[in-house]
Amino acid sequence: MDNSKRIPLDVLKETFLSVLINRGFNQKKSEICADLFTRASLDGVASHGLNRFPSFMEQVSKGHVKPEVDPVTEFSLPIMERWNGMLGAGMYNASLAMDKAIAMATTHGLGCVALNNTNHWMRAGNYGWQAAEAGCIGICFTNTIPNMPAWGGKEPKLGNNPMVIAMPYRDKAVVLDTAMTQFSYGKMAIYKKANEEMPFDAGFDADGQLTKDPLQVMAKELALPIGLWKGAGLSLMLDLLASVLSNGLSTYDIGLQKEEFGISQLFICLHPEALGIGKDELNEKIERTIKDLKGSEVFDSMEINYPGEQSLLRREENLRLGVPVDVEIWEKVKQMSP
Amino acid sequence: MDNSKRIPLDVLKETFLSVLINRGFNQKKSEICADLFTRASLDGVASHGLNRFPSFMEQVSKGHVKPEVDPVTEFSLPIMERWNGMLGAGMYNASLAMDKAIAMATTHGLGCVALNNTNHWMRAGNYGWQAAEAGCIGICFTNTIPNMPAWGGKEPKLGNNPMVIAMPYRDKAVVLDTAMTQFSYGKMAIYKKANEEMPFDAGFDADGQLTKDPLQVMAKELALPIGLWKGAGLSLMLDLLASVLSNGLSTYDIGLQKEEFGISQLFICLHPEALGIGKDELNEKIERTIKDLKGSEVFDSMEINYPGEQSLLRREENLRLGVPVDVEIWEKVKQMSP
Repeated sequence: MDNSKRIPLDVLKETFLSVLINRGFNQKKSEICADLFTRASLDGVASHGLNRFPSFMEQVSKGHVKPEVDPVTEFSLPIMERWNGMLGAGMYNASLAMDKAIAMATTHGLGCVALNNTNHWMRAGNYGWQAAEAGCIGICFTNTIPNMPAWGGKEPKLGNNPMVIAMPYRDKAVVLDTAMTQFSYGKMAIYKKANEEMPFDAGFDADGQLTKDPLQVMAKELALPIGLWKGAGLSLMLDLLASVLSNGLSTYDIGLQKEEFGISQLFICLHPEALGIGKDELNEKIERTIKDLKGSEVFDSMEINYPGEQSLLRREENLRLGVPVDVEIWEKVKQMSP
Repeated sequence: MDNSKRIPLDVLKETFLSVLINRGFNQKKSEICADLFTRASLDGVASHGLNRFPSFMEQVSKGHVKPEVDPVTEFSLPIMERWNGMLGAGMYNASLAMDKAIAMATTHGLGCVALNNTNHWMRAGNYGWQAAEAGCIGICFTNTIPNMPAWGGKEPKLGNNPMVIAMPYRDKAVVLDTAMTQFSYGKMAIYKKANEEMPFDAGFDADGQLTKDPLQVMAKELALPIGLWKGAGLSLMLDLLASVLSNGLSTYDIGLQKEEFGISQLFICLHPEALGIGKDELNEKIERTIKDLKGSEVFDSMEINYPGEQSLLRREENLRLGVPVDVEIWEKVKQMSP
C-alpha cells in the first residue's frame, strides 16, 4: 500500500464509535461494532475493517441495516436457540449470538444459536477469536448472496459462505477463517487494478476453462470454489445448515432480493473443560501438532503457518506500530464523524 | 471396468457376513459391518466396499482391528458422550456412535459422540445416510495418518480427514462426503495404471509445482489439499476437533505409529423437528435450492448434481440390475468364506 499510514488503535475505534452513535446505534451496539471493525483492521483484514466501513454505512442509509433493533428469540432450548436478527447490524447480532453459544457451552458443554434475518458480519474470524478467548471451540458460518457457480455452471448460484473453526490454544488460538471461493472478489480487484494474474486458478473464463485472469472471473462472477466440485458441495451444505436451522433465507432466497441482506448464520460452541477435556491435554496436543507442521521440510523459502498465526503476528505488529489505514478511506470515514 | 459383473445384493452381503462371523465377529457386529461394506458397493463406492474388504481382513489379522471388543463410554452428558473404540471395527464403532448421536438429538435436539481409539470407518458417507434416514442432520469426520502436505510443505504432515455433512430431504437425503485431498490416492492409482493424467491438478511434483501427473504426486504423497492452503487449514482443524474432543490420537500421533489405527472421530447430530423446524419447511427450502441449482446454465454438456445424487442413482440402478463387482476381488472374498 503506497497511500497508507499507521494510526493508533484508539483513534480508529473512537472514530468508528462516534460515527455509529451519530447514526442512531446505541452505546452498546456502537461499542461492539466499532470494536469489531477495529479488530479486523488490527489483525490485517482491513477489507472487512476500515475499508468496509463506508459500505456498511451505506447499508444503514438504504435501510438494509437497522440501527434501532435488537435480535428476538424465536425458539429456545438449553443448548439451542433460534434468533431473528431483525435486520440489525450483522456484527452486533453475530457477537451476541456467539456470546450466547459460549454461555450455553460453558454450562452444558455445547451450545448453538441459529440466526435468521441478519446482515453481513464483516470479518468472520472475529467470532472465532471471540469463542477461543472465552475458552471455547467455536464453529460458525454464514450464507451470502449467490456469487459462485455450481460445478459445471456458468452463472453464480452458490454463496461463498465464509466459515470459521476456532480452538483455544494457550493464551492464543488456532482460527481458520475461510470462504468457499479460492480468492475473494476483493482480492481479485486488487490484482486486476495492478494488471496482474492471480497466483493460482481463481475461477472460470467465458468458455468454462480455469483461469488466473481476475478480469475474466469477475466478468460473470465465476469464482472458483475451493477444491472445485468439493467446495461447491460444501458451500451448498453450509447454506442449507444455516438457512434450515435458522428458519431463514437460503442463498437462493437472498438472490431473489438482488441485494444481500436478511441472511442466515449458525454459531456452535463446545467447551472442552465442560466436556471433561483438560486444558493441559488440549494445549499439549495442539502444540505437538503445530510444532510438527512448522518443522516440516518445505519447498523453496516457504514458511508453514497455522490458521490464525498471521493474524496474531499482524496484531502484535500493529499494536506496537499503529494500525495501517488507507489514507483516502480513513479521511472519508473521519469526515463522517460528527 | 472390464473384469466386472453384477451380483445380487443379498449374495454380496451374505458372503461378507459369513466371512466376518467365521473370523470371530459376533452376529450383531457382522451384520452391521457386512451391511456397510455392501452399501458402499451398492452406492457405487466399491473402493470402500468390496474392494476394501480384503485389506480390512488383513487389519484383523494384524491385530489392529479387534473382533471381540465393544466401545466403552469414558464420559457422558445428555448431549455429549466420549467413547473409547477399543480398536474395534471402525464401521461398527462409527455406526453405534452415529446411532447414539441420533438418539441424543431426537431427545434433546442436538447430540455429539467423540470416539477415540477406533479404526477406519470405510465409506464415510454411510454415516451421513444413517443420520438422514433417521430424520437428522448429521455431521461427522475422522482423522487419518499423515498423507497430505501442509501448505508449502514437501512431506505429508496432514491427514485427508474425510468429512460428511448430511441433511434429510423427503424420502432421500443430501449427503456431502468429501476428503480434504482433491483426489484420493486410490483414484490416482487408477489413472496411473491407465497411464493417464488426472483431469485437474492433483498435487505437487518434486519441485513443489502443481501437477496432474499421478505418478509424481504418489511418489512422495504430496496430494493437493482442496483449495490449496484453505483445505490444508480445514484438515488441521478437523484433526484438532476430532482428537481434542475424543481425547484421542491426532494425525501427528497416528503418524508416529507408521500405520493407521486407533484414530479419532466426531459425530454430531441435529434433529430439525426437535429444534422446532417443520418437515415441510425443510423439504421445500431444500427443493427450491436444488431446483435452482439444477436449472443453472451450464458449460458444454455438464450436468449439475447435488451432493449424494449420484449415490442415489447408482443405488437405484444397482438394486435393479445387481451390484457391480470386480470379478477377481469377488472371487478372492468368496474364497475367504468358510
